[in-house]
Amino acid sequence: MTSHERPIGVAVLGLGNVGSQVVRIIQDSADDLAARIGAPLVLRGVGVRRVADDRGVPVDMLTDNIEELVSRDDVDIVVELMGPVEPARKAILSALEQRKSVVTANKALMAVSTGELAQAAEHAHVDLYFEASVAGAIPVIRPLTQSLAGDTVLRVAGIVNGTTNYILSEMDSTGADYESALADASALGYAEADPTADVEGYDAAAKAAILASIAFHTRVTADDVYREGITKVTPADFASARALGCTIKLLAICERLTSDEGQQRISARVYPALVPLDHPLATVNGAFNAVFVEAEAAGQLMFYGQGAGGAPTASAVMGDVVMAARNRVQGGRGPRESRYAKLPISPIGFIPTRYYVNMNVTDQPGVLSAVAAEFAKREVSIAVVRQEEMVDDDGQRCGARIVVVTHQATDAALSETVAALADLDVVQRINSVLRMEGATNE
Amino acid sequence: MTSHERPIGVAVLGLGNVGSQVVRIIQDSADDLAARIGAPLVLRGVGVRRVADDRGVPVDMLTDNIEELVSRDDVDIVVELMGPVEPARKAILSALEQRKSVVTANKALMAVSTGELAQAAEHAHVDLYFEASVAGAIPVIRPLTQSLAGDTVLRVAGIVNGTTNYILSEMDSTGADYESALADASALGYAEADPTADVEGYDAAAKAAILASIAFHTRVTADDVYREGITKVTPADFASARALGCTIKLLAICERLTSDEGQQRISARVYPALVPLDHPLATVNGAFNAVFVEAEAAGQLMFYGQGAGGAPTASAVMGDVVMAARNRVQGGRGPRESRYAKLPISPIGFIPTRYYVNMNVTDQPGVLSAVAAEFAKREVSIAVVRQEEMVDDDGQRCGARIVVVTHQATDAALSETVAALADLDVVQRINSVLRMEGATNE
Repeated sequence: MTSHERPIGVAVLGLGNVGSQVVRIIQDSADDLAARIGAPLVLRGVGVRRVADDRGVPVDMLTDNIEELVSRDDVDIVVELMGPVEPARKAILSALEQRKSVVTANKALMAVSTGELAQAAEHAHVDLYFEASVAGAIPVIRPLTQSLAGDTVLRVAGIVNGTTNYILSEMDSTGADYESALADASALGYAEADPTADVEGYDAAAKAAILASIAFHTRVTADDVYREGITKVTPADFASARALGCTIKLLAICERLTSDEGQQRISARVYPALVPLDHPLATVNGAFNAVFVEAEAAGQLMFYGQGAGGAPTASAVMGDVVMAARNRVQGGRGPRESRYAKLPISPIGFIPTRYYVNMNVTDQPGVLSAVAAEFAKREVSIAVVRQEEMVDDDGQRCGARIVVVTHQATDAALSETVAALADLDVVQRINSVLRMEGATNE
Repeated sequence: MTSHERPIGVAVLGLGNVGSQVVRIIQDSADDLAARIGAPLVLRGVGVRRVADDRGVPVDMLTDNIEELVSRDDVDIVVELMGPVEPARKAILSALEQRKSVVTANKALMAVSTGELAQAAEHAHVDLYFEASVAGAIPVIRPLTQSLAGDTVLRVAGIVNGTTNYILSEMDSTGADYESALADASALGYAEADPTADVEGYDAAAKAAILASIAFHTRVTADDVYREGITKVTPADFASARALGCTIKLLAICERLTSDEGQQRISARVYPALVPLDHPLATVNGAFNAVFVEAEAAGQLMFYGQGAGGAPTASAVMGDVVMAARNRVQGGRGPRESRYAKLPISPIGFIPTRYYVNMNVTDQPGVLSAVAAEFAKREVSIAVVRQEEMVDDDGQRCGARIVVVTHQATDAALSETVAALADLDVVQRINSVLRMEGATNE
């Protein structure tokens, strides 16, 4: 059967780690791919910035004329692996306008430009797949859009950035501070020369936007995502977390909130949070990723695997390529953008959450009472409080450290409380403020 | 748009735990489902053995005439939740012949009759979905058939039976023996009155057949799966496992084996195995399920969640229903059966595996040497050996216990070794033999 079918032509844009692996799989697994698709999958060309004979691909397959490559009549599927937002956006739009199906791993683009691209795909009646844009090899987009299509997703909490997870795991297991853990991550190739996108949570926020869009059938962009990075997390926070039976993870959280009147809103946010050690996300260490999903009927699900790297990301890209190719052969299309729900996105202040506050206070009677009063004034209930004496280098008492973990309150009430604490004379310093996620006692 | 589309009619066969939840979701989530499908999803009727007014569904929706229900012109999708193999098989075939798309959770049927049903679906050009047949709410079928469609699956190892996982978790955490852990499971509703299908591994074997078929593009039925149950696992095995840094899990294993000459074979097997505590499957406890996948490019993936129960299984069923309904509205079909690879299935004897052997021996010089000689004769290399003295009720030495863990060898060589050990005069008793899976040092 296979040999009689018209081949499906593929253009790959970008020949970095992922692009090279995609090209390799198309060539090495040609027979298997043809059998799975029902027609041969043929590489038509690779778009690169620099055409040269040392790229690991025959030089006559390379071109720096992206526009010409995506316009070829024998190209059915365009695989965009160039990043960043531009020139990827322009190339994808051009491909879609010419009725090519598109597969991309570009989370930054998908998180800002999803509406425009989805409309172009819709208009052209072609597929736009982006499984590899979130959590590398881990199937997340497809389970959310298809497997859970008959369920109501309540919450998605993901460890979706390998760099920060490596740094936090390292801080947890070795007691290292942030700077030296970052240096280790850089030395091992887990962090880029400029780590800002990872450590400040921009990468995770882009993925949170994509996940929230899909989970809640609402268009969410990166700008809608509340974001804090991991640069202020200290070894003392890990010590306190440990004492509370927790570790610290950078989480991308997408949540459906239902008011007492039944009004629904959603939240998408990224920040380092205390996670109880018995939560499935707590044991996801190093460069691994995991996405934890709670749905009304399904209950708790978790998807775990390698979130980055050439081969794992190429696996996700190739899954999309095979599905897009099958649709070309058999007719039909994959699921299109679903944004019918149009749920309002809640500002962080309205989100019910729990705070961990670590502060230095003067060592005198009435301090704990003054601190507790600030919580009580804003109706924030305290779950755990720990106070310990501090001594200076000469062994003299020089104050105390208080750690407070709250029950759930609105983020606004909690952050107001922290601001008020900072203004108290008896509080010398707020050492850190983190949120707590995933605890059952809320 | 939605309101102009012809409704998609659904017939549900079976009104047990899962069927009731499916009916509830179709009714409670009607607006969301219509928006996601692009047309209203309408329940046409429910097939039951006993029509009565106490079934939680209006009595005029019920019928005991399955044949008539699936033949109705206004039924587009038949959801089969009756089990067991018959009468489900007949109902599904009848539905497919009448060009209805079919969604089923029936693993026993899918594991014996997949070819026949797949052909009927192919002939009628309709969807046959069965996500709920393996691991309840956990998306496994769709990730394997779609997300990994461009990759090469090397291995699937799953905890796919909640009853046995509950029993083994209980034995591990409380030291209970098999009988009392089974009694607990029964009392909590985790085990059926006749637990044979679960504890003897038949349920897991059916799921292994389905997973192997999909992962390796080869038709595998339950009869092709090597199977051992958990009834002989003892508290002493758990104690030994602990000492070796392991726990014991009933695993469904599907593996691709490549000979030195590049010949490929596959294996599908179910047995209780020692699993290292640092393996992701080791921490999957209680009634939870998890499926661990290794693929060439993706590396290690794990899918975790609730493997049974009315609502979780209904979530998986409804995901399939929405996809089948979307295909009805938009045209197109989901992936069909893929069995092009037709890989030979290896008998258990040829499988490379590792054994754990626990035996009682007489306490005299030369015993360990005699035992070790039987392994050496068959070129089985020993990884760990532990010998400890046994004392009787009066505190007198009465022999010794030897625990051996081997490196990898063929299952045939290992089982021959165990048979030879049993014949040795110095071996009083082989207490137990288990395999070890998931250790890195093989």
